[in-house]
Amino acid sequence: MTTYVIHASCLPWTVRKNPNKMHQVQVKLAERSYPIFIGTRTLDGIATSLGELLIGWSHTVIICDEKVAQTFGKTVKDYLNQTNKRTSMLIVPSGEENKSIANLSQLWSQMLEEKTDRKSVVVAIGGGVVGDLAGFAAASFTRGLRFIQVPTTLLAMVDSSVGGKTGINLPAAKNMIGAFWQPHAVWIDTSTLDSLPDREFRSGLAEVVKYGVILDESFFDHLEEHADAILARKHEHIQHIVRRCCELKAQVVSQDERETTGLRAILNYGHTFGHAIESKTSYGRFLHGEAISIGMTMAGQLAVRLELWQKDCQERQTALLRKFGLPTSFREVPSEQLVVAMQMDKKTEHGRLNLILPTRMGNVRTVSNCEYADILGAIYGNAT
Amino acid sequence: MTTYVIHASCLPWTVRKNPNKMHQVQVKLAERSYPIFIGTRTLDGIATSLGELLIGWSHTVIICDEKVAQTFGKTVKDYLNQTNKRTSMLIVPSGEENKSIANLSQLWSQMLEEKTDRKSVVVAIGGGVVGDLAGFAAASFTRGLRFIQVPTTLLAMVDSSVGGKTGINLPAAKNMIGAFWQPHAVWIDTSTLDSLPDREFRSGLAEVVKYGVILDESFFDHLEEHADAILARKHEHIQHIVRRCCELKAQVVSQDERETTGLRAILNYGHTFGHAIESKTSYGRFLHGEAISIGMTMAGQLAVRLELWQKDCQERQTALLRKFGLPTSFREVPSEQLVVAMQMDKKTEHGRLNLILPTRMGNVRTVSNCEYADILGAIYGNAT
Repeated sequence: MTTYVIHASCLPWTVRKNPNKMHQVQVKLAERSYPIFIGTRTLDGIATSLGELLIGWSHTVIICDEKVAQTFGKTVKDYLNQTNKRTSMLIVPSGEENKSIANLSQLWSQMLEEKTDRKSVVVAIGGGVVGDLAGFAAASFTRGLRFIQVPTTLLAMVDSSVGGKTGINLPAAKNMIGAFWQPHAVWIDTSTLDSLPDREFRSGLAEVVKYGVILDESFFDHLEEHADAILARKHEHIQHIVRRCCELKAQVVSQDERETTGLRAILNYGHTFGHAIESKTSYGRFLHGEAISIGMTMAGQLAVRLELWQKDCQERQTALLRKFGLPTSFREVPSEQLVVAMQMDKKTEHGRLNLILPTRMGNVRTVSNCEYADILGAIYGNAT
Repeated sequence: MTTYVIHASCLPWTVRKNPNKMHQVQVKLAERSYPIFIGTRTLDGIATSLGELLIGWSHTVIICDEKVAQTFGKTVKDYLNQTNKRTSMLIVPSGEENKSIANLSQLWSQMLEEKTDRKSVVVAIGGGVVGDLAGFAAASFTRGLRFIQVPTTLLAMVDSSVGGKTGINLPAAKNMIGAFWQPHAVWIDTSTLDSLPDREFRSGLAEVVKYGVILDESFFDHLEEHADAILARKHEHIQHIVRRCCELKAQVVSQDERETTGLRAILNYGHTFGHAIESKTSYGRFLHGEAISIGMTMAGQLAVRLELWQKDCQERQTALLRKFGLPTSFREVPSEQLVVAMQMDKKTEHGRLNLILPTRMGNVRTVSNCEYADILGAIYGNAT
């Protein structure tokens, strides 16, 4: 993974127009390598930059939700219309419950109606739901189209838009269907966060905290120190945390693209608990990051019970999540039901749960032999 | 591509029990390389051979149709039951019209109910419909499971089971949704053809003839010379033609896995016409090979019109297809409608048809600038 600041003099003209520096993080995956562009107020550069990346590109399918269609979607469409390429825009409903077979099937039909072919490029603009759904539509239409992620939520910027995980939910299990399908580029304009509702912004911070806990103690320290500036969405702070999360994720994905060595699974810290919570509340009660915040707290409690990590680390994690306004406990569903839902997790092997648990700040490990009683205890335990 | 005869002394014990030699053709795709095993009465060896190939295999999902479930499916299940692995069997309806979103969706739900996870292996037993559908279910469940193709029709043996093309149809376009997802092995037992209905056997021969026309003149000569023995399904002849087709397909797929260089597209000879014929007759009137036989005849006629190939070559192709009892003309749908349906083809770029046309026996090329009038003329033309 390489990170470097591109100076204006080295950039093609459209990017040069932009007064802000753009950062670039490279996801290194041999012939599937791609850049993550990170900047502020950079949407005007997208058409030209993509034109340089995408040989033979003849048609764009923008996929976004209704709200984005009227804002950033329209902006990107206007810029793309200045090229000589045909542009279609397809609207999908927002909300995790819409990452469904029905919506995927409708997208496929609409893409066919729009005469989408192998020279078409899918541009997913929005949060994780749109990115996952549009990404899988791109992966599966004519057995694979190129696609670009343009995340407009913090959660999508730091997590779902990078790494090629695309897919939909089955009614009983989240993200059960999908493909590893890498984007050709990720285009992050942090100014799109200015209008993000507060609850969604805070939800994204759960994944940001996760990177500190699993991979980078000094990043965790940084988050504690600058929590107020981050909550105030100061641009330089937002750019910094987005860039660091993308660097960390790119590093992991480059080493374990398809979650085969166990390394990539660490990104799922808190997610086995979190997904079960989302599933048992029908994906309607919590935002994803909120469920992950509770899930990380439960995973931390389990790690404390197992004497894998210290109580004061758990307290620091809980305190930072709470500082960011995130929930850290959930007791409305019996623990036994939550454990059953947890077993639907994709990391389950031979019917056995594999859990990612913290060992010290900046480090986690996979634990595959947890006692049922300990997991139940951790779920019931108080958020310390 | 390598072909070699494995002598009994070099084989693991279960295969050694088999009195017949097994041939092995290797599809070379770096870390996605896999063997095609070709033999007669070899199903008894499948469990042990797969055990050697599949590290960490814990559960098998056999996918087949109702009829196969009672014959080869049951045989394979019995052999697998002798191992210590859990085995599930899922039944899908047969027929091209069942390669649908509804059936795929049902498979996904059943796989979840059967507690399928990343250590599970999908074994697709049957013809192309089952292989394509089961292959895409394997490709997409938990973003990718290992799978094994056990083709039991001639068409599936020589074509659809090799090369990793999986997928389903949209109502208006065949194979529009899917993935390139390579199997971990293809297991061909030619004795499964003994009970294949005559019409289906002949349908498979259309793809066999195709390999001669596009890649191997001497193989075409061989088919002409031994047509009667082939129609009589003499085992040594069937093994020979299956092996040669697999060798040719493996060669092409190894060089152009994802149809990006144009080489793999030659396997689609006759298919742009053929798919349109299948679509306009709602996939119910012709078997796939029958539609491809008509499609090859139309493509050949177009090539004659364009003075790309000689009339006597076209006559040899038509004569061999007819000798194999295959249809070579179709006039019930107006040509204009057929051309519209042809434009749904995945090889269409910038709205322009790319057609694979023969130039001499054993050779084809891609032609992208055909006049509309010539295509119409070829469709109306007599089968010469």
